[in-house]
Amino acid sequence: MADIFEHIKIAPHFGNTHPDGYTVYAGPLSDSWAKWHGSRQYSGIVIICDENTASCCLPIFLTKTGIDAFSLIVTKSGEQNKNLQSCQQIWTEMLNICADRKSLCINLGGGVVGDMGGFCAATFKRGFDFVQVPTTLLAQVDASVGGKLGIDFETLKNGVGVFQNPEAVFIDTVFLRTLPERELRSAYAEMFKHALIGSEQEWATMCHWVPAVDAQLLSRITASLRIKKVYFDKDPFERNVRKSLNLGHTIGHAVESHFLEMGQPILHGEAIAAGLVCELYLSVIDCGLPSEILEKSIQALKGVFSPLPISEGMFINLLNLMQQDKKNENGQINFTLLEKPGKPKINRTVDSALIISSLKFYIKNYAN
Amino acid sequence: MADIFEHIKIAPHFGNTHPDGYTVYAGPLSDSWAKWHGSRQYSGIVIICDENTASCCLPIFLTKTGIDAFSLIVTKSGEQNKNLQSCQQIWTEMLNICADRKSLCINLGGGVVGDMGGFCAATFKRGFDFVQVPTTLLAQVDASVGGKLGIDFETLKNGVGVFQNPEAVFIDTVFLRTLPERELRSAYAEMFKHALIGSEQEWATMCHWVPAVDAQLLSRITASLRIKKVYFDKDPFERNVRKSLNLGHTIGHAVESHFLEMGQPILHGEAIAAGLVCELYLSVIDCGLPSEILEKSIQALKGVFSPLPISEGMFINLLNLMQQDKKNENGQINFTLLEKPGKPKINRTVDSALIISSLKFYIKNYAN
Repeated sequence: MADIFEHIKIAPHFGNTHPDGYTVYAGPLSDSWAKWHGSRQYSGIVIICDENTASCCLPIFLTKTGIDAFSLIVTKSGEQNKNLQSCQQIWTEMLNICADRKSLCINLGGGVVGDMGGFCAATFKRGFDFVQVPTTLLAQVDASVGGKLGIDFETLKNGVGVFQNPEAVFIDTVFLRTLPERELRSAYAEMFKHALIGSEQEWATMCHWVPAVDAQLLSRITASLRIKKVYFDKDPFERNVRKSLNLGHTIGHAVESHFLEMGQPILHGEAIAAGLVCELYLSVIDCGLPSEILEKSIQALKGVFSPLPISEGMFINLLNLMQQDKKNENGQINFTLLEKPGKPKINRTVDSALIISSLKFYIKNYAN
Repeated sequence: MADIFEHIKIAPHFGNTHPDGYTVYAGPLSDSWAKWHGSRQYSGIVIICDENTASCCLPIFLTKTGIDAFSLIVTKSGEQNKNLQSCQQIWTEMLNICADRKSLCINLGGGVVGDMGGFCAATFKRGFDFVQVPTTLLAQVDASVGGKLGIDFETLKNGVGVFQNPEAVFIDTVFLRTLPERELRSAYAEMFKHALIGSEQEWATMCHWVPAVDAQLLSRITASLRIKKVYFDKDPFERNVRKSLNLGHTIGHAVESHFLEMGQPILHGEAIAAGLVCELYLSVIDCGLPSEILEKSIQALKGVFSPLPISEGMFINLLNLMQQDKKNENGQINFTLLEKPGKPKINRTVDSALIISSLKFYIKNYAN
């Protein structure tokens, strides 16, 4: 059997969570669900899906868990619907089905469902239990650990939200078989970022792995999660070392927001891949990252991600978006850069001219 | 000098709070502000007021604290504006003034400003520091301890929110001089409830005290807070004993929501006074509360609160509203009742006929 069954234990960190923390179960859902749910008593179950996971993933989920009594809330799919309006719909439906503080909310979907469904559960009646069942590779390697919940607000990505851990996370690669290949590839950028801040060895491994639903996949996922967990455990509220996980994200988020504003949404991973290229370029200049790391990383990312149509006309807006990044402090754009694989440097500021150089570097060296 | 200066230390409880917990400063604001703020560094200050406190309290606050650089957000006053629309306005203004995670939010106002401003600060960019400066007696004795933040959602009072402690609370009776007398009286119901679950002695003291801005007031406030703190410290997330604080609130909230729905909003304290009368009646029947306690409590409450125009035609809607109470579990209406002063009993359920009897009792014995 290709699947391994692995538990990653996460400390409680946030107040409202189970005092023992929670477990990320990686492996066959039928085993892990029975193991976890056996000892739990809930007054009712609410499942939140989006339009896609309601048809592609829900039948699999129900078969594997044996759940037969539940209320279903279906939201519109896509990052453009990760907003207050969708929360209003979810809260209204929670109200209508009389969800209470002893209910369980199951978020079955990608990052949008996890972030938004988790936020709604964490705030409805000031919070009731929820578990995450990420159905995209990106959500499995990124959103399943870290406790970040929320929605986009106006121009601000993840502008409104809370930190709160789920009661459990269930990772089963069975759901990934339902995904378009583009979604699978999208996760590669976050996994690559984890490898960059993880170690030289992880980085080298990732340079030679191409995302696919294969025998290696589950161990690649758990390797990625274990790196994230190290930073998260040290600093759950992102006051210092957890910021290491923001490598690629200052420029990446701006790129993502820009294309969303233009009505041409791109996948998170596609934006972060561009952000990584730019910020590794900045790392070479600002932190002495060996340029060989930059070059090999570009080769690896190019093998997975097509170039984005970034052009000089977008620079002003991209800078404006970075200026609004919630990671900023005292009005300064805040970067995480890299000295070498496994050694990130947080709280770096670089001037606008250099940021523009990095975007130009992307256009010249990646997009051509 | 009539004022005492007293510190009540609150344990951290919730994850995102200062590791040392926080202090409720009761006494002259000029002293306590200097003491607290001296050691803190913030990138900027946001003050949230409603229309009333912006004119009545803000000038006093600025004079006493010496704050001269800040951004002001003014919300519409009243419980009917404690909603998602107002949050949207607050978040938008926070975005426009570039509030960041190192900013400080000061909520200067009554319970609505505290609950909603606190919720917005606790969720904007996943949370930044806030302090509460309650300017009504009700907010001083109730909202200033307990970490409950949020807004009303559709028919659900406090339907969306989080648990989060502020960085500090500043209680100065100077603000109470700006209040209409009705507002001052409104707080008496919560103080009376604290006394009921506090001890026989506290209850007896409250039976003979009439709310007024007098020499006794600050010590009455801190006595009330200390009772609340005992229950809060034992059970911050309201899983068990903290529910004692809900005495009077199951029926009281339904009454409050009903009059709000009718477009005739009443003060929180007025609703809770009615709720207390009904629930003390239930306590006599269900928990053997001596009827003398009920009678003396009615006399005390009558001295402060005029009867509400509750009529039989409202009973069905009141029961429906109780059915939606977020304190319910497994679809049962949940009450906190009282065996004797200082001895509340949580998780009591009583049948609908008895709830109706209690409302009839109110009409017969209080409203006539």
